[in-house]
Amino acid sequence: MRIAIAGLGKIARDQHLPAIAADPAFLLAATADPDPRAGAAGVPHFESLEAMLADGPPVDAVAICTPPQSRHRIADAALARGLHVLLEKPPAATLSETAALEARAAASGATLFAAWHSRFAAGVAPARDWLAGRRVLAASIEWREDVRVWHPGQDWIFAAGGLGVFDPGINALSIATHILPGAIHLATAELDIPENREAPVAARLAMRHDGGAAITVELDFLQTGPQTWDIAVETDGGRLLLQRGGAALTLPEGSREGEDREYAGVYARFAELIRGGASEVDIAPLRLVADAFLRGTMRRAAPFTG
Amino acid sequence: MRIAIAGLGKIARDQHLPAIAADPAFLLAATADPDPRAGAAGVPHFESLEAMLADGPPVDAVAICTPPQSRHRIADAALARGLHVLLEKPPAATLSETAALEARAAASGATLFAAWHSRFAAGVAPARDWLAGRRVLAASIEWREDVRVWHPGQDWIFAAGGLGVFDPGINALSIATHILPGAIHLATAELDIPENREAPVAARLAMRHDGGAAITVELDFLQTGPQTWDIAVETDGGRLLLQRGGAALTLPEGSREGEDREYAGVYARFAELIRGGASEVDIAPLRLVADAFLRGTMRRAAPFTG
Repeated sequence: MRIAIAGLGKIARDQHLPAIAADPAFLLAATADPDPRAGAAGVPHFESLEAMLADGPPVDAVAICTPPQSRHRIADAALARGLHVLLEKPPAATLSETAALEARAAASGATLFAAWHSRFAAGVAPARDWLAGRRVLAASIEWREDVRVWHPGQDWIFAAGGLGVFDPGINALSIATHILPGAIHLATAELDIPENREAPVAARLAMRHDGGAAITVELDFLQTGPQTWDIAVETDGGRLLLQRGGAALTLPEGSREGEDREYAGVYARFAELIRGGASEVDIAPLRLVADAFLRGTMRRAAPFTG
Repeated sequence: MRIAIAGLGKIARDQHLPAIAADPAFLLAATADPDPRAGAAGVPHFESLEAMLADGPPVDAVAICTPPQSRHRIADAALARGLHVLLEKPPAATLSETAALEARAAASGATLFAAWHSRFAAGVAPARDWLAGRRVLAASIEWREDVRVWHPGQDWIFAAGGLGVFDPGINALSIATHILPGAIHLATAELDIPENREAPVAARLAMRHDGGAAITVELDFLQTGPQTWDIAVETDGGRLLLQRGGAALTLPEGSREGEDREYAGVYARFAELIRGGASEVDIAPLRLVADAFLRGTMRRAAPFTG
């Protein structure tokens, strides 16, 4: 399948280009990005998806890797042309935009895949299997990273709709909603928003699992030194610990760690959905983030300068 | 059906008690509210729903009229006992709490009705019928009221999860999502939050209708003098104007105004759902509000003192 990438930023270069190159189901046909210097992938480059659709080579699918604020507009144009669409996470800047894209895909017959790449980390599928038969007693999520290292110069992340610390934090929520048996709801939240920005640099959430178990979430974007991407789940069968963003899994019976194949998994799933004529859009992680903003206490934090 | 009211505040006294008294399908059996002076309805009064369920008369249904922050906990307890539940709007403080209640109701077999009372205003059903065959070109919502008149002393409304100006504004959104053919999504938002409060006192939203039409929303909680609760829709068949919160409808062919029977409509629908063994939970209005917090630019506004 001939695929285009819209939005050639850090995640497209670090992950999508290599994953497409390694997947025999896809052939990169074109790229689109307002920055003309971004076109370095050896295929025709256009300043926008619209320009590519008008003048570019034919494509069957588009991977949308722009900042979330413009994702709906671009995805909507692609779906209206009957193209299959892969959305980087989060699927759009709002839940209602995501619902509108879902309706558009259903009407067009094209595949819409709202990907949550962290769900393809090596430890996640075995963690989900292990938890399936167990009762959850408590869970905690700690996601602490250095925004200056992982998102250098990405000002959109602190703009309205950019999610701030929830940009990485939503990865943790995408894992938790996937591996825990039963649903999670948000009870309370505290969000720290730098005085000179729109989106939080830290957050603390209190959530509850279906069965009543408390789930605590600590998100921090200013962690220097060792970085932490951990989920711990206490169950009636002992303790599960996922570390390194889902790559490393420790169970009472032992540990294992897999290589990073998240985006290989994303593209394999996308190909499978297209072949089956299906879409996959799970809004649960973005719904928890929206709930945190809706329900949360906003605190002003010290200005953030990149 | 024997019904209890949980939360005997202003809306319960102004609307729910009279509506239940006037509806032959329901008999008020008990009330619950932490304020002992609230029990003045001539039926046994308890300090909590839990106390009522333990020691009170048998009931078949509960209307939950507490502030939204405690609605999920109380509704969950009622549904777990197999009681039918009517939720005042908004159905809960978060979307994930609402989804959890929906799942709980489906598991228990009880009816869950997330009521949007403004949808029962006299002009709303005919407006929906009139719009059904028409193309929407643009729409505007203006909801300006005086919080000091309509919500005296209700501090919860400006607390986190209390929605602020969206407490009335969600009524407008519940009408718009009901009468417009096709879905609405939120594009951008500006929220004015008083320095000493958690929830906005004013908001401006830019939304889009399925067909691409722009929908503007202006919400204001500090309007003195004449109050405004208007929705205007420009269509290919002329202009529709809903005023007075949906009570007055003006179409190209003329005007009409009905008496206020919103809560009579709410309880008639609740009875119908219980008889049919069905639930009705439309999260679209709360989803737009969550999206406004998620996507919105927050501005600090002057302190608000009741």
